[in-house]
Amino acid sequence: MLTREHLAELDAADALAAARGRFHLPPGIIYLDGNSLGPMPCAAPAAVQAVVESQWRDDLITSWNRHDWVNMPLRLGEKLAPLLGAAPGQVAVADSTSVNLFKVLSAALAARGERNLILSEAGNFPTDLYVAQGLAARCDCELKLVTDGDEVQSALDERTAVLMLTQVDFRSGRLHDIASITSAAHAAGALVIWDLAHSAGAVPLQLDAWQVDLAVGCGYKYLNGGPGAPAFVYVNRSFQQRFAPLLQGWFGHVRPFDFEPQFVAAEGIHRALCGTPPVISMAALEAGLDAFSDVDMALVREKSLALTGIFMALLHQECARFGLQVITPQVAERRASQVAVRHADAFPLIQALIERGVIGDFRSPDVMRFGFAPLYIRFVDVWDAVAKLREVFTTRSYEDPRYRARAEVT
Amino acid sequence: MLTREHLAELDAADALAAARGRFHLPPGIIYLDGNSLGPMPCAAPAAVQAVVESQWRDDLITSWNRHDWVNMPLRLGEKLAPLLGAAPGQVAVADSTSVNLFKVLSAALAARGERNLILSEAGNFPTDLYVAQGLAARCDCELKLVTDGDEVQSALDERTAVLMLTQVDFRSGRLHDIASITSAAHAAGALVIWDLAHSAGAVPLQLDAWQVDLAVGCGYKYLNGGPGAPAFVYVNRSFQQRFAPLLQGWFGHVRPFDFEPQFVAAEGIHRALCGTPPVISMAALEAGLDAFSDVDMALVREKSLALTGIFMALLHQECARFGLQVITPQVAERRASQVAVRHADAFPLIQALIERGVIGDFRSPDVMRFGFAPLYIRFVDVWDAVAKLREVFTTRSYEDPRYRARAEVT
Repeated sequence: MLTREHLAELDAADALAAARGRFHLPPGIIYLDGNSLGPMPCAAPAAVQAVVESQWRDDLITSWNRHDWVNMPLRLGEKLAPLLGAAPGQVAVADSTSVNLFKVLSAALAARGERNLILSEAGNFPTDLYVAQGLAARCDCELKLVTDGDEVQSALDERTAVLMLTQVDFRSGRLHDIASITSAAHAAGALVIWDLAHSAGAVPLQLDAWQVDLAVGCGYKYLNGGPGAPAFVYVNRSFQQRFAPLLQGWFGHVRPFDFEPQFVAAEGIHRALCGTPPVISMAALEAGLDAFSDVDMALVREKSLALTGIFMALLHQECARFGLQVITPQVAERRASQVAVRHADAFPLIQALIERGVIGDFRSPDVMRFGFAPLYIRFVDVWDAVAKLREVFTTRSYEDPRYRARAEVT
Repeated sequence: MLTREHLAELDAADALAAARGRFHLPPGIIYLDGNSLGPMPCAAPAAVQAVVESQWRDDLITSWNRHDWVNMPLRLGEKLAPLLGAAPGQVAVADSTSVNLFKVLSAALAARGERNLILSEAGNFPTDLYVAQGLAARCDCELKLVTDGDEVQSALDERTAVLMLTQVDFRSGRLHDIASITSAAHAAGALVIWDLAHSAGAVPLQLDAWQVDLAVGCGYKYLNGGPGAPAFVYVNRSFQQRFAPLLQGWFGHVRPFDFEPQFVAAEGIHRALCGTPPVISMAALEAGLDAFSDVDMALVREKSLALTGIFMALLHQECARFGLQVITPQVAERRASQVAVRHADAFPLIQALIERGVIGDFRSPDVMRFGFAPLYIRFVDVWDAVAKLREVFTTRSYEDPRYRARAEVT
């Protein structure tokens, strides 16, 4: 039998407890949606103000050199690299996840030889599938989707040019084993692309050790970079010479400020850049990355599994009679940092919870998602969130007609 | 003989004089580089702070609906549309200029039928050429470049799928006649794409009336949207049904938040979106667009031509003996809002001017560029800038060895 007192003791012993102070968390809110949009790092306002109200305002165009705006995409990439298990020179921050995925998928297809199949799973995040569908239609390729993520290894064959997967299923929170799947893909002669949108900052990654070819991910979820923060792109050093994305722009040129009419790709990860970087949004993301500078990702993983495990245990202990179905894997190795729960009234339940200060989100048709970011979520938050859910059930307050018709967004 | 007193009288009579107060211009600086990075609108800090320190901080994920983040790309597009001469529903703000150019060029090529030639000019902004080179190499197309921009009409033929030009030459400031060139391209059966990077906010545009098919442009130059501000994309209503960019992502889906696995393009200009918009950078751009809300672009054009014309006249009057060569057209119809001047010592001259508070920029190998943004540049600024240039020449201060080795960026 879990008690709130026991959870408070876990908080008192939590080696990551101090990190919570690096984020602004509105009073009275339990924020379980950091997997959609991370909260504001306390350092973000000053970082943004420095760019806007000092660098841009006072130093104008000269800031590109004076304040090193021109190197932000790679500077932020190097700050992110340790979280990805990447040695220097392989990560850049730029554009959106969709655009970066387009770059790496187009580059993988250009290096594919005779193979003409992109393999992915039907439950992949939709924008990844949309990017692949767009490319496949015009590049003489086929997109093959397996229904069950566990079937990807057996679906690999001599036609597979690229295996493109998201490590964490955005609905269920199921975690793929990048090491074994990448190894199987390479054994089958395919390249791999991993989307780490729900992984980076929540799950320890070893992209170099796992010999991942290409990866992308999101800046505004567990990296807390702000709404629509620039995304990231990883190109393994061994692939960089071959990396020739279909989308090429001046920031990927070897000498962008020589304004040469012929494109010549820069060396290394620079060639993953395209247009001018959105400096103000980048400044907020840099504050988010700085919040990780001394964080041990092994501790993050340990606390993440404890938080999600206790949440599931408490759902069983406190809410068993309400017909909830947890679709997140119970096995720790298969679970990322979120818990997904099915219920026929998932939409009004989430709305009622939000109105009571517990912010999760809804995914069509009947899934409630709760994200547990170990840097700022406490064990008592887990208790209080489940208590609110039980209250919403017992008072039947989720039946309020106001909760029936709202739109939502991630 | 022009005098500073005469120019002060022009300022006193300037119908746009009040607009200068909408921008922060550092004391002691004459900023003639708004064609590279516009200055900070006074409203920008509050706009950015509202997003960061109120919406993101306090309302977190719910801000996507509560503060209408989700509609920012189209809301900003509608604010921009009048400056482009576009009726509602044809302009979106998103991504970088390079990425937007990739979208429209790939969509134009997809609609091209049997034609296989992209026509442009060698002096086009390099990133435009890089985007076209990337696409041409993989889409069975050829990129043909004319050396002299005046030859584009005669180079059109039955092979031309797309004519892709930038209205304003980034070096010389030469202005293309969009109406006549578009008409000639259509007569030859080609689609047109116009890059308006150095036009929007400086030159009156009539994209609808000119029947332009597709256009893109930059948010951080004359629109004053901040460093690396999101760019814009225009898709003429008559082309929207056929508009199928190779780059497709979830914000261009007809129902993005239904998370459907199959891409179905949204109706209208929505389909020009791709990934999640960079909200913080967008907030700064919105402040820049708002500074134009009551501005008559005919007055902007009139003042622009007066500023550039007087600058050229003063160069002749005050600096004739220093070997300067103006490469910007003298004819008003051929001139945008910048003046380019060749000199063998262009690089150190610009550095010496910057150190004396006159900010222009350098373009390889020997060009000094001076941009005149009518919303905040005064006629006396033109006088004072030329006076500083004369001083730099007469004191030979540009020969200081410190000015020989710096990098620059736009």
